[in-house]
Formats: sequence, structure tokens, C-alpha cells
Amino acid sequence: MEKVTRFGVSIPIDLAKTFDSAIHKKGYKNRSEAIRDIIRDYLVEIQWQNPENIVMGTVTIVYDHHTRELTSVLSEMQHKYYESIICNTHVHFNEHDCLEVIIVKGKGAMVQEIADRLISIKGVKHGKLVCTTTGKTIK
Amino acid sequence: MEKVTRFGVSIPIDLAKTFDSAIHKKGYKNRSEAIRDIIRDYLVEIQWQNPENIVMGTVTIVYDHHTRELTSVLSEMQHKYYESIICNTHVHFNEHDCLEVIIVKGKGAMVQEIADRLISIKGVKHGKLVCTTTGKTIK
Amino acid sequence: MEKVTRFGVSIPIDLAKTFDSAIHKKGYKNRSEAIRDIIRDYLVEIQWQNPENIVMGTVTIVYDHHTRELTSVLSEMQHKYYESIICNTHVHFNEHDCLEVIIVKGKGAMVQEIADRLISIKGVKHGKLVCTTTGKTIK
Amino acid sequence: MEKVTRFGVSIPIDLAKTFDSAIHKKGYKNRSEAIRDIIRDYLVEIQWQNPENIVMGTVTIVYDHHTRELTSVLSEMQHKYYESIICNTHVHFNEHDCLEVIIVKGKGAMVQEIADRLISIKGVKHGKLVCTTTGKTIK
Repeated sequence: MEKVTRFGVSIPIDLAKTFDSAIHKKGYKNRSEAIRDIIRDYLVEIQWQNPENIVMGTVTIVYDHHTRELTSVLSEMQHKYYESIICNTHVHFNEHDCLEVIIVKGKGAMVQEIADRLISIKGVKHGKLVCTTTGKTIK
Repeated sequence: MEKVTRFGVSIPIDLAKTFDSAIHKKGYKNRSEAIRDIIRDYLVEIQWQNPENIVMGTVTIVYDHHTRELTSVLSEMQHKYYESIICNTHVHFNEHDCLEVIIVKGKGAMVQEIADRLISIKGVKHGKLVCTTTGKTIK
Repeated sequence: MEKVTRFGVSIPIDLAKTFDSAIHKKGYKNRSEAIRDIIRDYLVEIQWQNPENIVMGTVTIVYDHHTRELTSVLSEMQHKYYESIICNTHVHFNEHDCLEVIIVKGKGAMVQEIADRLISIKGVKHGKLVCTTTGKTIK
Repeated sequence: MEKVTRFGVSIPIDLAKTFDSAIHKKGYKNRSEAIRDIIRDYLVEIQWQNPENIVMGTVTIVYDHHTRELTSVLSEMQHKYYESIICNTHVHFNEHDCLEVIIVKGKGAMVQEIADRLISIKGVKHGKLVCTTTGKTIK
């Protein structure tokens, strides 16, 4: 059982109302649970700001695998960074389009670099990096 | 070979400079490639604004699998939405922490709901939804 | 709580001894648990013998992604069968070698065909199909 | 371009006929391609016989996630071996059944142990290990 600390927070009534309605829609049962998640999100961001910290990222890309040489370029790029890439999962939508999620672990700057390189490859239609954490430093 | 159209764009010099430096860092070879990606990103967002469109999402979550009943709750929740969840990929970092990426396909409102439900579960330390596309509507 | 039936089985002493030592090594706690698994395995095989039954398979392949055109050929082949392939997971070992697991659902004959086609592609160093089940028909 | 050696093989005519018909069905274009794959398969087996060699395995399991405590037991077990497990991919079939593929890297004896432990867990309906290789030692 984890120990919990309690503390008071004062915020404007209107802000509280908007917040309550937003977190209710998200499925949170109370403000504390939502606040905990927001604090963790903030801590993850701080972890990423120090480029020496080991962080996790997931890179989602969508592309048409018929684009000339694209599958080779993507494969080559990922193997270049193989020490940081844990695995990737690929879904084939139809005869053309694919979604791929690449799970990356490493220093923040490296994970960002890998995401940038993959997303900017010609033929990648859409791409996004999620900056997250190994979970060790947030409780 | 895909057909291409060309058009002129006028933007403030300072904005262009900042833009050039940003896209150079991201690895884009020229402005056109970067502009194409930004336009696609914008179109993906619009697709999501219509809750009836079929879209794709990837939900990244980090959690400690020792949290009481968490693995059962996550599993139960995902099976409830099994028709929209294509697969999930799970990485075990250490004896406690995991990262999971859940790939979801469905109407925008449904994908958002699944992400909200998963991320707000007690014990999920960090979670993010990437809103993306099946690729059919953007070229 | 699932209902259980009990029945006697008579087998030669020597066979029982070899069996006990084998299942002990595998981690089974008693003969019943092991027998249950063997019976299920047998039922899965029977499901596969009827080519009309819907079954599951996982195809594991190992290859060097530098082999000329291999990544394109693999990608093309998988998209051809996209309606039967749920997803694939890819691990990059080093700058050359990859392991890929493709999860397939469909009629037995189709799943077998996809596995055969993938494994026999020139440049795929090693490949194996696991014939399994959607789980519905075995308890 | 890889160098190739040629050598003659003499086998009984009937064996050759059966072999030809089998490999034709599998999609091989000629005997050499099929023989190459069989030799690699044989070498992978030998690699596994030395328990000190680093090998790869994929473990496919099917289970009903409602089985009491099964998801926790599976998660606990996988985290115990987290240094050998690279990732796992999970597919939800319906409200009950799941297929999971666990990708494992380590000494042969360890990979076998992980597979045995996972497959023999009560509630796992069906499970199979594919013994494969990191690809380095076979060309």
C-alpha cells in the first residue's frame, strides 16, 4: 500500500468548474486522481528537458508502402538506431496503407532525433512522437 | 509517379527564418516537404473533429504492473472494446514498470473514449493518445 | 468456476515415468494439467485439418533486411493478404538482422498459404508457423 | 552479392519426387532454395542444443483473460524474466479470448524455461515455442 500525502489547493471557481467538467468527461472519479496524472505529465516533460536522462518514446507513423523505396529507407533508418529501438508493431490497413508504432528508449535528444528522422522521411504521410518515461522516477 | 502542384506562399521573413531552422533540425530537405507534412497534420485533425469519421489512434501508457488489480482492469477494459482495438504491444522494463501501446481503429469519438478510459485508470502513471489516420484520405 | 469431469487412464508404468519426468521439467504441477494441455493441442490440430475452420497462426521469420528488395517483397506480400494479417511485430537485432512475428487469422488453408509464401521468400533465413486457435472451441 | 558454392546430392528418385511436390506446394522455385532453408533449420536446431548459445524464441499463447488471476500471473512471470523478454504483442479476439506472442532472447536453456513456465500456467489453453536464431550465424 503506497503512502499518500494530502494538501490543499486554491483555484478560481470558474477554473475549477471547467476542470471538473473536463475530468468528468475523461472518466476520472475525483480531482485528486486527475491532479496526480497532471503532475506526472509535468514531471515527464521535465525529464525530457534534460537531454541526458533516459526516457521512452513511441513514434506512430502512417505511410503507403508502395511509395518508392520507402520500406527500405524506413528499415535502414531503424536498423541504424537498433540499439535504441526496442521493437515496432505494424498494421496493414489495406493494399496501400500501414500504421507503424516504433518503441524507443534512450537519452531524450536521441529519441527526439529518431522520431524527427522517421517522421520527415519522404512518403511518411503522418507521424507523431509521444514523449514518455520508463516509469522509474514517477510514482 | 504522383502528380504535383506548385503554388506560392508569402510569409513574414522572421517567421520563415524560424521555420527554416526548425525544419532543418527535424531533417527536412526543403520547405515543400515540411509544408506537405503540416497540411496533412491539419487534415488529420479535421478528420478527428467529425466524430463519424473512421480514424486511427495509438494509446501509449506506462504503469507498474504490481498495482493492485491493474493488469486485470486494463485487460477487462481492452476486451470490452475488442472490436476497435487491433492489437497492443507491451514492453517490460524492469520488475515493476511496463510500457504498452494500444492500436485503435474506429470513429473519432470512440477512439477518444477508449484512450480516456485507459489513461484515467488508477495506477496508470502516464498516458497519451496520438490521433492519426488510416491514410486513405491524405496523399 | 468451470465444471470438471474425472476419468481414469491406464498407461504402461515406463511411459508414465518418462511422462512424469518430462512434465515435471516443463513446470506442470500434476498429470491432469499436462493431459488437459495435450488434449487441447490435439484439438487444435484437428481444427486445422478442416480447411474451412477459422484458426490463428503466428509466423516467425528471421532475415537480413539488406537482402536486395527483401523488405519491399515482404511488405508487398503482407499487404496482399492484409485482410487475414492482424499485425506484425518487428525486432531489430543489429544493423543487419531482424525477427518479425506476423499474426494471422483465417481459414486453415489460407493461414498455411501465407506462412508458406513468407517463409519461402528468398532471403528469409529461418521461418516457422505456429498453428493455434482463436480459443473459442477449446475450454 | 553473396558468393555461392555448388555441389551434387544423390537421393532416391521417390524421395526426390515427394520432396519436389512438397516444396512446390510451399512456393519454392527450385530445390536449391528449399535445401538452403532446410540446412539453416538444422543449424538453428544445433545452436539450441548448446545451452550456452544466445538464441531467439517466440512463444505463442492463447488464453481466456477472465480466468482467475491469470493476467496477473502472466504479467508477474514475464516481468521476472524481463531481461530476456524483448516485447510481447497481444490481440483481443472477443470478450474472452486473447492471443499473445512473447519475443525472447537469451541462452537456449533460459528461453526454453520461459516458454515452459508460460505454457504450463493454468488457464493457458494453448502454447507453442518457436526456436529460432538472431540470424548472425546463418547466412
